[in-house]
Amino acid sequence: MAIQVVVWGENIHDRENEVVRDLYPNGMHGTIADALNQDAGIEATTATMEQPEHGLSEERLARTDVLTWWGHRDHGGVDDAVVERVAQRVWEGMGLLVLHSGHFSKIFKKLMGTPCSLTWREAGEKERIWVINRGHPIAQGLDSHFVIPQTEMYGEPFAVPEPMETVFISWYDGGEVFRSGLTYQRGAGRIFYFSPGHEVYPIYTDANVQTVLRNAVKWAANPAPALTDISDAPNRPTDKALEPIVERGPTLHVDGEIGFR
Amino acid sequence: MAIQVVVWGENIHDRENEVVRDLYPNGMHGTIADALNQDAGIEATTATMEQPEHGLSEERLARTDVLTWWGHRDHGGVDDAVVERVAQRVWEGMGLLVLHSGHFSKIFKKLMGTPCSLTWREAGEKERIWVINRGHPIAQGLDSHFVIPQTEMYGEPFAVPEPMETVFISWYDGGEVFRSGLTYQRGAGRIFYFSPGHEVYPIYTDANVQTVLRNAVKWAANPAPALTDISDAPNRPTDKALEPIVERGPTLHVDGEIGFR
Amino acid sequence: MAIQVVVWGENIHDRENEVVRDLYPNGMHGTIADALNQDAGIEATTATMEQPEHGLSEERLARTDVLTWWGHRDHGGVDDAVVERVAQRVWEGMGLLVLHSGHFSKIFKKLMGTPCSLTWREAGEKERIWVINRGHPIAQGLDSHFVIPQTEMYGEPFAVPEPMETVFISWYDGGEVFRSGLTYQRGAGRIFYFSPGHEVYPIYTDANVQTVLRNAVKWAANPAPALTDISDAPNRPTDKALEPIVERGPTLHVDGEIGFR
Amino acid sequence: MAIQVVVWGENIHDRENEVVRDLYPNGMHGTIADALNQDAGIEATTATMEQPEHGLSEERLARTDVLTWWGHRDHGGVDDAVVERVAQRVWEGMGLLVLHSGHFSKIFKKLMGTPCSLTWREAGEKERIWVINRGHPIAQGLDSHFVIPQTEMYGEPFAVPEPMETVFISWYDGGEVFRSGLTYQRGAGRIFYFSPGHEVYPIYTDANVQTVLRNAVKWAANPAPALTDISDAPNRPTDKALEPIVERGPTLHVDGEIGFR
Repeated sequence: MAIQVVVWGENIHDRENEVVRDLYPNGMHGTIADALNQDAGIEATTATMEQPEHGLSEERLARTDVLTWWGHRDHGGVDDAVVERVAQRVWEGMGLLVLHSGHFSKIFKKLMGTPCSLTWREAGEKERIWVINRGHPIAQGLDSHFVIPQTEMYGEPFAVPEPMETVFISWYDGGEVFRSGLTYQRGAGRIFYFSPGHEVYPIYTDANVQTVLRNAVKWAANPAPALTDISDAPNRPTDKALEPIVERGPTLHVDGEIGFR
Repeated sequence: MAIQVVVWGENIHDRENEVVRDLYPNGMHGTIADALNQDAGIEATTATMEQPEHGLSEERLARTDVLTWWGHRDHGGVDDAVVERVAQRVWEGMGLLVLHSGHFSKIFKKLMGTPCSLTWREAGEKERIWVINRGHPIAQGLDSHFVIPQTEMYGEPFAVPEPMETVFISWYDGGEVFRSGLTYQRGAGRIFYFSPGHEVYPIYTDANVQTVLRNAVKWAANPAPALTDISDAPNRPTDKALEPIVERGPTLHVDGEIGFR
Repeated sequence: MAIQVVVWGENIHDRENEVVRDLYPNGMHGTIADALNQDAGIEATTATMEQPEHGLSEERLARTDVLTWWGHRDHGGVDDAVVERVAQRVWEGMGLLVLHSGHFSKIFKKLMGTPCSLTWREAGEKERIWVINRGHPIAQGLDSHFVIPQTEMYGEPFAVPEPMETVFISWYDGGEVFRSGLTYQRGAGRIFYFSPGHEVYPIYTDANVQTVLRNAVKWAANPAPALTDISDAPNRPTDKALEPIVERGPTLHVDGEIGFR
Repeated sequence: MAIQVVVWGENIHDRENEVVRDLYPNGMHGTIADALNQDAGIEATTATMEQPEHGLSEERLARTDVLTWWGHRDHGGVDDAVVERVAQRVWEGMGLLVLHSGHFSKIFKKLMGTPCSLTWREAGEKERIWVINRGHPIAQGLDSHFVIPQTEMYGEPFAVPEPMETVFISWYDGGEVFRSGLTYQRGAGRIFYFSPGHEVYPIYTDANVQTVLRNAVKWAANPAPALTDISDAPNRPTDKALEPIVERGPTLHVDGEIGFR
């Protein structure tokens, strides 16, 4: 069965900013979903912020293999309950692609446990993305590097934890560098952060960028059954211990009690 | 100058439970602080939940090098603003020791980005703690292993990210294992999780446990200046770029604008 | 196309020790290959030490996706040239499963860069293997733990680098623990170390162990083209630089010279 | 007591090449040792390749806390026995700083388990080194970045394992990037690779570079007792097991036998 992807878009600049509207008539999420659907193994649909529950109901997330996240203008407007729901699904095994300004989204900051801050400049300068880990599934089909002719600069230090893998590092005309492709694992869920994607440039129509997105979806999809119990803390009572033991000493909990939270 | 430590205690069972009160007349935080103060290079004081701002004012945290955290009965009662404040200080460089049931504290879950769940059993069984990384500063002065005669079992799977280092792994009478000593880095702050410490047993009076705590405080203390700007995302304008560049193409932001959050 | 696996066996105790011969009439490699071939997506053949080039010619390795390695009695007898050849193929992208006493093989020590030492006891005691990373591909189809009724104890400290992922940790009757399933990446190649497999017990006939081996083969197979140039250090001459630069200052190398090794 | 450092220099170009001789009248090792000795907490001496045992006798290494390694012209000429000796000391706890072209030294390749290859260009171009991990001890006293006016370009992909920490990333005039400061742990030993240092430019006289070297020495020094037994694999016989067990089933080893290698 095809990998089920939901492409989430904040959909504010996509509608309100003329430049963005011209570049992405169906929104950035529309262009991204189209790019993903070029792969027969992927079925991508979209969800946007203005929809009920931001388009991310429990039921829909439950059948989503990979979620992609692009937001910029109103991170603060995303409902905390939806953020919790997405995090739980990532821990259970749903893949997550965090794109560009999504570095400051609630969901990325929650999963990283760090500020996720960086430096930035909007000058339309050139970005050259170097492949660090050539054997990585996300880098397949790319040359040793590729260029994004006009980009927003994102510069180090990028306040994220050490990644599982550094897949890409970017070079900028203006003199900065940035770890532009990083992987993480949280619970059973794989996370890929990819920095290119400023909305006033046609970055999501770039063939190399689209290759990265398709590769990343396939890398992030975890076919294992969802770990729906991953947030539970089950008691293993003494009489069911794997090795025979006898209870000794005082106890705090009464039998069958649930642990404190 | 000595390392400034604040030993934080929830101080509920310490007061309300007779067994705990007898074991720890000054609270577990009192016993832990005394153990730390045996080292001339450490100055430890205590803070408890019932104090204003849980004893963790901005001013006090600003001069704290390492914070230790023990909570169990009422994680939910910890003020979110204090949790944010502690997280910010960790990112700036404050060390953090998370103890035992603190695995489910708001601050640990926030910094890990995972559920931090585990399995558990309160049977007073034996725990043998193996040193995995003998050269690690936290393991100095220990033998290849040590025993805690009566413990609460914490079992795998422990839903945390892959650690920077696995320092200890525990063996239990009842047949389980647990990664009982793990290190993490978040921003400039070092984090050590250490699982022994159930309140109805005299674990914090154990000489080996006290050695671990003193070692961990010294390991976690970062003498570098606090990165008070770590959550900022500064703009680096085109006219101040390190390499001469010319702005090209459309822009979203107006000059001097602050980035979106 | 099916994943091409070569199951390498030292084949000394398999022939010379009566107990091993009775357990594994076709050698441990034969039993392992049979277990792998139960999966239609895998085509496993065997190679043994006494064959020319230990059965691992350049040509054969070039078409191998995953190599499994079991050796014990005569690690020192493995030809260094073959070890180099296997390492190069791992760096290019071939997967490698290192089994049991293979922890002391030349190839594993070479790829780890550490002594790979451990403690051990041959008492036929019980080993309980806990799944640490339940969402990991290698753990699929397993319960939360499984038991090996008779095992050789391998104990910590295991002198290997911090792994990419800790997949399994073992509990032993005699009181030890061991990180029994660890993953690494070296170049484009994925490596999985799995500790059960002492030759005088029927461990490779165990259904759970066979599941692990099949899962690990699929996890380790990298479908990307081999990075046959991964050990090269190409010069990028000034006149072909991606950005226009002018050579300045003295030089050590003459034009077209190959770098020193 | 001061940290005991041995600054190892290949000392070939230092003597034979006029440019290098003029820049470093006492050899690069001499300049590096002088820079380290500016810190009262460090006592640095030098050793060079042409000395007996390359200046690295067992006795001298045994009292060395941190070794720095610069080689280029004749990596192949380094005696394998000395390489083994250095590796053993790293595993025991000696720190190691690998400098510039030392990426292709036998000792670095041995400890990494990868080819350690990269791309390169000798054009005297500008290198800007960005601090990625501002709170790291090795980055103390540096600004957010610093410039090396004339450098040899080292470019990605750098075929090393994922590091413990990425401390620095370099930007080059010619369009490349490089992870120029990386940390690793092997056994009890800490390793820092630092890429600047081409011999025909005065890089080791640069104030920022010298700060990095002093910081790195202090970071790499491990005050713990040397783990001289780290390469041993001790048997833990049944009658000395920590938990009472009874030997069951067949055995391969006879009592008191040493494990195979």
